[in-house]
Amino acid sequence: DSGELKRMRFMLNKGLRPVEAAKLLEKTPPRERQILWNLVSKENEGKVLQHLGDDVQADIVSRMDASELLAATEGLDSDDMADMMQQMPERLMREVLRIMDKQNRKRVEKLLSYPEDTAGGLMNTDTVTIRPDITVETVLRYLRRHTDVPQDTDSLFVVSRKDSFIGVLPLTRLLTSDPQVMVREIMRTEQAAIPATLPDQEVARLFEDEDLVSAPVVDESGKLLGRITIDDVVDVIREDADHSLMSMAGLDEDEDTFAPVLRTTRRRAVWLGINLITAFIASAVIGLFEGTLEQVVALAVLMPIVASMGGIAGSQTLTLVIRGQALGHIERGNIGWLFNRELIAGALNGTLWALVVAAVAVVWFGDTTVGIVIALAIVINLLAGAMAGTLLPMALKSAGIDPALAGSVLLTTITDVVGFFAFLGLATLFFG
Amino acid sequence: DSGELKRMRFMLNKGLRPVEAAKLLEKTPPRERQILWNLVSKENEGKVLQHLGDDVQADIVSRMDASELLAATEGLDSDDMADMMQQMPERLMREVLRIMDKQNRKRVEKLLSYPEDTAGGLMNTDTVTIRPDITVETVLRYLRRHTDVPQDTDSLFVVSRKDSFIGVLPLTRLLTSDPQVMVREIMRTEQAAIPATLPDQEVARLFEDEDLVSAPVVDESGKLLGRITIDDVVDVIREDADHSLMSMAGLDEDEDTFAPVLRTTRRRAVWLGINLITAFIASAVIGLFEGTLEQVVALAVLMPIVASMGGIAGSQTLTLVIRGQALGHIERGNIGWLFNRELIAGALNGTLWALVVAAVAVVWFGDTTVGIVIALAIVINLLAGAMAGTLLPMALKSAGIDPALAGSVLLTTITDVVGFFAFLGLATLFFG
Repeated sequence: DSGELKRMRFMLNKGLRPVEAAKLLEKTPPRERQILWNLVSKENEGKVLQHLGDDVQADIVSRMDASELLAATEGLDSDDMADMMQQMPERLMREVLRIMDKQNRKRVEKLLSYPEDTAGGLMNTDTVTIRPDITVETVLRYLRRHTDVPQDTDSLFVVSRKDSFIGVLPLTRLLTSDPQVMVREIMRTEQAAIPATLPDQEVARLFEDEDLVSAPVVDESGKLLGRITIDDVVDVIREDADHSLMSMAGLDEDEDTFAPVLRTTRRRAVWLGINLITAFIASAVIGLFEGTLEQVVALAVLMPIVASMGGIAGSQTLTLVIRGQALGHIERGNIGWLFNRELIAGALNGTLWALVVAAVAVVWFGDTTVGIVIALAIVINLLAGAMAGTLLPMALKSAGIDPALAGSVLLTTITDVVGFFAFLGLATLFFG
Repeated sequence: DSGELKRMRFMLNKGLRPVEAAKLLEKTPPRERQILWNLVSKENEGKVLQHLGDDVQADIVSRMDASELLAATEGLDSDDMADMMQQMPERLMREVLRIMDKQNRKRVEKLLSYPEDTAGGLMNTDTVTIRPDITVETVLRYLRRHTDVPQDTDSLFVVSRKDSFIGVLPLTRLLTSDPQVMVREIMRTEQAAIPATLPDQEVARLFEDEDLVSAPVVDESGKLLGRITIDDVVDVIREDADHSLMSMAGLDEDEDTFAPVLRTTRRRAVWLGINLITAFIASAVIGLFEGTLEQVVALAVLMPIVASMGGIAGSQTLTLVIRGQALGHIERGNIGWLFNRELIAGALNGTLWALVVAAVAVVWFGDTTVGIVIALAIVINLLAGAMAGTLLPMALKSAGIDPALAGSVLLTTITDVVGFFAFLGLATLFFG
């Protein structure tokens, strides 16, 4: 009813802040989401859009035309506008650029010229710049004439007449300095500016290591282009960490939790298809030993244990190595030590659990040979899991393939094949 | 040789900043790590320790005695000191507190009284406070007398005579205001202070939503206790996201990548043991159908496909729901829609891949019944995976159990049991 709609309209535009309205949209299924979106007032559209996840944002944007989009994004920072445009279909993006006023177009095109996952793609152009040869008092007077300093400004950037970056003047230092002192004497120069081409993960690491709130971005010639602020870096950190988790299940970190059923089905189908190939390879290995299986049916009962133990142990190693790569812990110099440790841990745990499984198998089937065979196969498979878990992500990374995405499928293929082959192969030797 | 040692000593104490020295220690295997640690000079020990991951830190700290520790941590902020003490064995912590000077002890004990994963555990006590009834000019004069304002200070806190929190004065607003204006007139009061008992994940969400750099922390009576800064929040976000990834493989997010082999083996053994129970349950299910397996050996060859497809599909749903829970997207009101979508996606993908697998099975074994049986079993198991993947994390969370830790084991148990039971059970009906 219309009372309910009125209430929702009030809530979306007045009751909630834009970031909260965006959250509400994100946790609403698609049909209701579209209804809610239609209730967002024109002047709030841009602010709400900006806070949506990539997947949801692209969805809503794809249903707007260029002039609607331009109107919605009018009041946004140029970097947020550029981010949003990167989610648009090529044709829509061109159209929006075409109808934009010239000054804005130039600014946005400049930002669009840097890939989304670099410092240039992260930066905004809201910098407050000063010259080195003025006094603190002059700076204070200058700032007092500004009514509005951009959000997250914790320092002013000192630039030359030609806009070359020279240094940083933290507000805290500005406030604690003698008014007669020159900027040149109190500015900080030890922290280098960030090149626009630096990958965003390295930007994030820099912010974390140095506890930065904002940092200047420069081009190859040292000219100040803009600044990166901690709020955008936090998004990179969050997405970066989400990436490994989601990729290991074949999902995208931008995935809309409430994506429509057909899109969900299509995306999942691909992953299931890839994994089906793995499963068929495993079945083919089992098929090699049909004769042995017919003879000793206990083998069919026990064989999943061997594959599963190898898979679990291998996944632990794989996850640890992928996380270590993301944190920058693992490199050529120390992978050897890690490989050895994983191998020893695999051998020890393999032996321990092989004995347990063997004991159970002997009691269950009253057959010592089955116990010996499964014990050996488990040790072999845990060693295979340890080796694959360490070497696969290293090899994939060198080959430029995302270890989080391809690692788990390949690992399972290896531990399934080795597990079934070792178990049924040894059984064929012992029983044949 | 001693030239090499000298070079390393120089690098650890002069060449690298403490955060870099800490990274170097983190990516060094245990024995070499201890050698490097011994080269860190007394005055740098505290600063390096503070930047180490929990696991590595606890390791090094456990080898120091109370007076060494006190000396090492002398120059640290009280919150970093409290964090470190939380990693110590109870006895060592008491000993350090005993020999600490009275003022420091009081401060640290206060911080220790809040659990590590709350706002109180995150905060530090480095606040700059002012009264509401003074002018901007007075504030500026007062700050100029301070030579050192704490790092990450982006705002001053306005408090009453009794230290009750009243509002926040951002430095940017201070700098752009008329010197004659009273603090009361320009301070911001719309952002509420954070209660000391707020869980750290909610603190992180607040910082992300509001793009905060620092925020005041108060006790139940509204008294200002300290402040939380973005650098500590970034650690929470990183750990929070790492937590799901690592837990799903049965690992701890604080896990030292280069933990010694025995510790690694012991921790992994537990996880393998738990998963072994799952594997045995699956085997027991297969064991129920020994007769059928003896009759039709093709079933043994194909059965891992059914279990694996259900497991993969279920893991995708599980990961999506766990991520959605962490982002605060999933709640009672929308879980019903999600459950239905997963069920439909499962049915569609189940049907698609069931047909593919059935076709392959019929061609491979020349037996239509095997094809029908496996197709039905795959559809059933993908539905089971979708249901378990949605409902398990919800149920676990309500029960106060971490879904990321327990979810994947339980899910695999369900998809294995349902997969084998459906496939072999149907086969028994059709062939029996």
